[in-house]
Order: sequence, then structure tokens, then C-alpha cells
Amino acid sequence: MEEAKGEVKHVLLAKFKDGLSEDEIEKLIKGYANLVNLIEPMKAFKWGKDVSIENLHQGFTHIFESTFESTEGIAEYIAHPAHVEFANIFLSKMEKVLVIDFKPTTVHL
Amino acid sequence: MEEAKGEVKHVLLAKFKDGLSEDEIEKLIKGYANLVNLIEPMKAFKWGKDVSIENLHQGFTHIFESTFESTEGIAEYIAHPAHVEFANIFLSKMEKVLVIDFKPTTVHL
Repeated sequence: MEEAKGEVKHVLLAKFKDGLSEDEIEKLIKGYANLVNLIEPMKAFKWGKDVSIENLHQGFTHIFESTFESTEGIAEYIAHPAHVEFANIFLSKMEKVLVIDFKPTTVHL
Repeated sequence: MEEAKGEVKHVLLAKFKDGLSEDEIEKLIKGYANLVNLIEPMKAFKWGKDVSIENLHQGFTHIFESTFESTEGIAEYIAHPAHVEFANIFLSKMEKVLVIDFKPTTVHL
């Protein structure tokens, strides 16, 4: 099993609070994406709405996946003032949130 | 906001039952990875252990991310006999599981 050199994914699952408009959610997503421009170790950002059909999403409706070069880069990101400021707003709009970081590993069979 | 053409990610978060050995977990991961060879619409497979430091992982310890060309491909995968057989074994070893599918979307600011 082989890890990609240094790359670490930061995955956040979110369920927004009831009553947020699509516009408000879009602004929050753009604010999240904009962290790539503000925080050096954050290298990429993607997101999507849940489209699963197995009903195992436990109420989470959105997923956000950002890419870092190392776990140290994620620690730097978490402590960065731009992240702290955004997270205070973002998390106040969440009914629930789940975060997992991982080093993507492929399997050679 | 731009979706990658057709690509859909199938993300599974897992917490294995207590008492499973590292060897048993590695066998399950290899079995999961091997589905790429058995199920045509499944195009790629990566996994990793949680290395997050924010304590927002809600007990999930592993993440599995597979790639499909479409949501129809995921439906075909779920119904495929090789998946059904593997899922019966895999899910019996899980304390909990969460699944989200999404079309990775980038944001142009």
C-alpha cells in the first residue's frame, strides 16, 4: 500500500442549519474556497453536494475536500487567522460537522 | 462553480469493530481495492487512516474514496454481485459507517 508523497486531504462533512438560503450557502462555499488564496499550505479546494442513494449520509448534505502538502500544513492552516475568522462564521451556520484528514493511499494487489 | 465532467466520488467513512486485528483490517482494505478489478464503472480507489487533530472525526478511523464516471456507475456498482458479496462481509465488521457521493466542483473566485 503506497502513500502519495506528502499529500494530505482534509475532508469536512457539513449539514447547514435549516433556514439558510442557497445564496447564503454559496457565499459560505466561496469564502471557504477563498482560503486557498490566503493560506499558503492550502493547495486546492473542491466541494460537492451529497448525491448518494444508499441513505447512509447521516444527514450530511455537503462535503468539502482541501489538499495540503503535509499534516504540518493542516496544523498551520487551522491556526491561521484567516481560517480562524472564517471557521467562526462557517461553524455558526452548521447543524453538524465532521472532519477527517488522511494521506491518500493506493493498494497494489 | 465548475463540476469535473462526469466524475463522481464515493466516500465511505468507517469505524471498525473493536477486536479486529491489523491483518484482518488490511485484508478488508485489499478486498475493497480489488473491486476496481471486478466492477467496470469503478475507476479508482484510495484510502487512508484518520490523522486529523481537531477531534471532529466522531469516532471514524478510516476513509475510503472511490471514483466513478457517473452516478449511474455508482448505482451499477452498488447492485453488482461482487459488491454485494464484499459489502456483506465488510459491513459486518463495522461499528459504524457513513457514505457520501459527490461531484467534485471547483470554485472560480
